[in-house]
Amino acid sequence: MPSAIPNPFVTRLSPPPIPSVFAWARDYAGAHGPLIDLSQAVPGYPAHPEMLRLLGEAAASQAMTGYGPIEGETVLREAYARHVSDIYGASIQAANIHITSGCNQAFMCAAIALAGAGDAIALTNPFYFNHETTLSMLGIERVLVECDAVGGFLPDVVSAERALAAGARALAVVTPNNPTGAVYPPSLLHDLFALCRKHGAWLVLDETYRDFLPGDYGPPHALLSEPGWEDTLVLLYSFSKSFCIPGHRLGAVTAGPKLLGEIAKIMDNMQICAPRSAQVAVAAALPVLADWRAGNRLEIARRAGALKAVVSDLPGWDIAAIGAYFAFVRHPFADQSSAEVAERLAKRVGIVSIPGSYFGVGQERYLRLAFANADVASIGLLGSRLPLG
Amino acid sequence: MPSAIPNPFVTRLSPPPIPSVFAWARDYAGAHGPLIDLSQAVPGYPAHPEMLRLLGEAAASQAMTGYGPIEGETVLREAYARHVSDIYGASIQAANIHITSGCNQAFMCAAIALAGAGDAIALTNPFYFNHETTLSMLGIERVLVECDAVGGFLPDVVSAERALAAGARALAVVTPNNPTGAVYPPSLLHDLFALCRKHGAWLVLDETYRDFLPGDYGPPHALLSEPGWEDTLVLLYSFSKSFCIPGHRLGAVTAGPKLLGEIAKIMDNMQICAPRSAQVAVAAALPVLADWRAGNRLEIARRAGALKAVVSDLPGWDIAAIGAYFAFVRHPFADQSSAEVAERLAKRVGIVSIPGSYFGVGQERYLRLAFANADVASIGLLGSRLPLG
Repeated sequence: MPSAIPNPFVTRLSPPPIPSVFAWARDYAGAHGPLIDLSQAVPGYPAHPEMLRLLGEAAASQAMTGYGPIEGETVLREAYARHVSDIYGASIQAANIHITSGCNQAFMCAAIALAGAGDAIALTNPFYFNHETTLSMLGIERVLVECDAVGGFLPDVVSAERALAAGARALAVVTPNNPTGAVYPPSLLHDLFALCRKHGAWLVLDETYRDFLPGDYGPPHALLSEPGWEDTLVLLYSFSKSFCIPGHRLGAVTAGPKLLGEIAKIMDNMQICAPRSAQVAVAAALPVLADWRAGNRLEIARRAGALKAVVSDLPGWDIAAIGAYFAFVRHPFADQSSAEVAERLAKRVGIVSIPGSYFGVGQERYLRLAFANADVASIGLLGSRLPLG
Repeated sequence: MPSAIPNPFVTRLSPPPIPSVFAWARDYAGAHGPLIDLSQAVPGYPAHPEMLRLLGEAAASQAMTGYGPIEGETVLREAYARHVSDIYGASIQAANIHITSGCNQAFMCAAIALAGAGDAIALTNPFYFNHETTLSMLGIERVLVECDAVGGFLPDVVSAERALAAGARALAVVTPNNPTGAVYPPSLLHDLFALCRKHGAWLVLDETYRDFLPGDYGPPHALLSEPGWEDTLVLLYSFSKSFCIPGHRLGAVTAGPKLLGEIAKIMDNMQICAPRSAQVAVAAALPVLADWRAGNRLEIARRAGALKAVVSDLPGWDIAAIGAYFAFVRHPFADQSSAEVAERLAKRVGIVSIPGSYFGVGQERYLRLAFANADVASIGLLGSRLPLG
């Protein structure tokens, strides 16, 4: 009898990277002090007690047990639409918002909405690995847009135009970037938007780390004020990082109502609706915890400063890019792969990072450090530990 | 400039059917008394107070805020593995369980794991509509296996073999069935399993409504005791109906560790992990609420009895199939489409059902009634209202 085999689009994928990195960390015996986990992006401070109270209250409610609207709870869509309107100085309505169960799901919904198997979507190189594997498992081709390492890993506009001219249905970028931390300036985002529009493609902006821009940064871009933005632009967001609640899985898509109508079909198939109680809790927390979130933004900026200071004193180490949450750091071991270096650092000196090679092609000289995970004192310890790794 | 259009695999789908049915219901003015909603499957009684307490407690916990394991919380995987082992008299381990955010997501994970765009998966006709649209949006072909209306809508084995011989990579069936309610006997499930094995295909059993089988039914099948079942069988389950918590979105896949390794890759892309706090709450509730769930099973059996009694007295109406949660009822209007009949019943007499045509080809004479949603007294009111519709 023939053997039943799974879909080769899935079997060809590597296993999820984060657990493999955690496995290295488990081999660290503690010789140099506590483990410093700079791998998966997890805020290194707890959720606010009021957030927990709101989550508990909503989850204990009979009203939250039934199915909810596919598009998300109206109260959260309205609250988030106001929030987005404030950030961008634009007029965004609840009808522009679809709530998802995390930003990975928002990306997968957008990818399915915009491209089928055999179509192509452009990603930057380096990319966020789950974007690449999501496309791959769906049979969607990826086209890579090169980033300029010397210029702080901003995407190269000529490379982007080449991808779009070749027929990519969308260009997906992450700003502030994962893995490099690079913050794409408004003018660059406008150029990418104009390119997408010119070629009849979509610009997908994953803004998961938007809340950790410097406090004086101003609006990340003005694209929501472009006439007809709904025919070109899709914004993705995560409530996980800002509210320290990734375990509750909550994200959002901001787009035109027509595209959201397509995304509603996809979400209905994928899970009917995002879990409800966390939506109601976050809707209440969004205005209430604004000051707390602003304070965290300052704290994370201090951590960025601490990382810059410590790396500048380390011979051979160099910060290639740094931004809202991550730094992309060049290691001194020219003859070793990034995975070898990351594995050794984890096992030998208890510093857990993600190899550059996990994020794209030709990234062997880099490690991603999620510095936002660790407090300033822990970051200071890198100065003595990294040279031993 | 060219216009950016969404993926035609998605645009060709009809909008999600449940909201369109709800829209009919909103037009009912109440002339014949309160609305009787027999559309979306929602248990017509509240969640247990202890379930709500557990949900609230877990959601308020700092320990639940971080990312969880992709495969699900160990405590729930172990508890559900014990539960499945008890039901089937089989030896199922936590390594056989992957927790998802609802059973629709479990199906989508299984579909992606087993088939890519251009491959085919066999569904019964009638089918659960989200199964069909999930395949369609992924570019997976559907092949239909006919069910025998006269024999209570059980799938025809010859038709199933034809689909598998033509190369379908999997056969997906729902038992107890949605939409018909039909309970597939263990011997039929064994035949389908053997057919799938013979053709190197997978048998996907969606057992969302398993907890509402009659109390004396015995194990639904013996397939988990078949040697090598892991290479052919995938079981899907939902915690939504049994615990009355669809808003918390929780389901499970039971399969071999090798296939679950592929599903973990998919889930990592789709949403990293299912929301955590509800997992911990349900793990605690699973043993504690066993008696309460058994009581609900009896109550729903009483509702099935009430529906049979009331329909048997209605000239022209006939129960074509009935089972754990649903009945597939033949209406008397031979010259009208099922959507026309369902719309009229909703708007005119406040009885909300789903048209048979939503579930497949040639189902115009049928309506799906989710009788479990309504108490015995409400079901009794159908006797006077249906003839006015």
